[in-house]
Amino acid sequence: MVIDTCFTARYAETDQMGIVHHSNYPIWFEAGRTEFFRNASIPNSQIEAMGILLPLTHMDCSFMSPAKYEDEIIVKTRIRSMTCARIEFDYQIFNSEYDRLLATGSTSHAWTDKSLIPLNIKKLQPEIWLLLEKAAG
Amino acid sequence: MVIDTCFTARYAETDQMGIVHHSNYPIWFEAGRTEFFRNASIPNSQIEAMGILLPLTHMDCSFMSPAKYEDEIIVKTRIRSMTCARIEFDYQIFNSEYDRLLATGSTSHAWTDKSLIPLNIKKLQPEIWLLLEKAAG
Amino acid sequence: MVIDTCFTARYAETDQMGIVHHSNYPIWFEAGRTEFFRNASIPNSQIEAMGILLPLTHMDCSFMSPAKYEDEIIVKTRIRSMTCARIEFDYQIFNSEYDRLLATGSTSHAWTDKSLIPLNIKKLQPEIWLLLEKAAG
Amino acid sequence: MVIDTCFTARYAETDQMGIVHHSNYPIWFEAGRTEFFRNASIPNSQIEAMGILLPLTHMDCSFMSPAKYEDEIIVKTRIRSMTCARIEFDYQIFNSEYDRLLATGSTSHAWTDKSLIPLNIKKLQPEIWLLLEKAAG
Repeated sequence: MVIDTCFTARYAETDQMGIVHHSNYPIWFEAGRTEFFRNASIPNSQIEAMGILLPLTHMDCSFMSPAKYEDEIIVKTRIRSMTCARIEFDYQIFNSEYDRLLATGSTSHAWTDKSLIPLNIKKLQPEIWLLLEKAAG
Repeated sequence: MVIDTCFTARYAETDQMGIVHHSNYPIWFEAGRTEFFRNASIPNSQIEAMGILLPLTHMDCSFMSPAKYEDEIIVKTRIRSMTCARIEFDYQIFNSEYDRLLATGSTSHAWTDKSLIPLNIKKLQPEIWLLLEKAAG
Repeated sequence: MVIDTCFTARYAETDQMGIVHHSNYPIWFEAGRTEFFRNASIPNSQIEAMGILLPLTHMDCSFMSPAKYEDEIIVKTRIRSMTCARIEFDYQIFNSEYDRLLATGSTSHAWTDKSLIPLNIKKLQPEIWLLLEKAAG
Repeated sequence: MVIDTCFTARYAETDQMGIVHHSNYPIWFEAGRTEFFRNASIPNSQIEAMGILLPLTHMDCSFMSPAKYEDEIIVKTRIRSMTCARIEFDYQIFNSEYDRLLATGSTSHAWTDKSLIPLNIKKLQPEIWLLLEKAAG
């Protein structure tokens, strides 16, 4: 499953180079994850309501072409890999004409409880595991 | 003219109170202005391409009810007043069920050139003036 | 008591006008509050550890002169008023030479518990009340 | 040359996990770069005033231990490598007691003009090249 998330680049996201500041791309990845979990029938706010968090352990981002204010942005999100302790996502960011790849990236997350102690999602919440396994397919 | 702008509250926008941090509301107002200008047939990025800027001189915001992660947000934007030197916008922020007013606010802007020197928009760009006058009605 | 907080304007805080984006001023005010509470011998993180929050009910900001990347910024913070239910702060933002007032503003806060239910700080935590009353003088 | 940059983690930088949101680490790296350039006697705002930009081509970040609100943060910045077309920085983020490594990361940048066209910094601005070569040592 690859999920598309669409939004408009905000003025506040630009910097004095006249392009979207790079620190916004992790936030755009996150908007993609939010949409991905929703489409997997398990919204992230629902996962958090169960006391389960997904803090990042790693992220990386490569920038190909700058995004500009008012650009229509598309984030393509998919699961790269998952274990009972971790989950990794891949992202591609396009402009809305799909003719320009703006950036690619990935994030790695640990499944933890509210105190950020690692947990085994497969054992603790087998339903979440199954929904995500299906979405990863 | 009152323009609705819709988007999902982002995880990065929350703070450790578990609600959207107040500094995001000016950014949401700005997303409302972007949409307003588009609907007035004069996108803000097009105005800037003419060398005309709209820096803030004042903003205020009252917070009624907190926004939460994944809330569907609606910003209602309208022109409160305009002169040849200034423009003021009013905003109301609702959740998507329109049953909860989250915040209200306003922003005041000066029309300036790229060096932030004030200018007379009515004289300099009468077409922009007319489009906004119409949109203010 | 008026407390000075100093820091350098960040690149990420600029926008494509080449100035610090207005949404950062509430964050700078907040940095001023953090320092104010520390100087009042009651750090905000310690207040929160007691289960007491200070969500905003109102904020406003007037912009006199733009801040630029790498500017040395000074936020002057003081208590404007306080009751057992509310506290209000005033801010002035200067450049480091103190010859240019960049912005002024204020924030109003409610004292609440972790569920954002209002509380009476004077009754619940008389020590915090006394420290702040002293700092307000 | 390794340069230390110190500041206090801001409330606005936290998210609803109660930790600093990961999107702030690239901003903290950038604060480290700003300080690094200053210490190399060539402030970044001065480089930009010459019409030379340093947009990112890549960034990555590994998160070891969460930063919390009001934590005193130290960013250690050094040049990892440089060519006439590119420059790479390494970062380590510590808490102020230096007993906890919070995160490590790197950023890669291209030297470009104001239109984001690549340029040869060694040829165009040999003085900047020499200052950075010295700082990299």
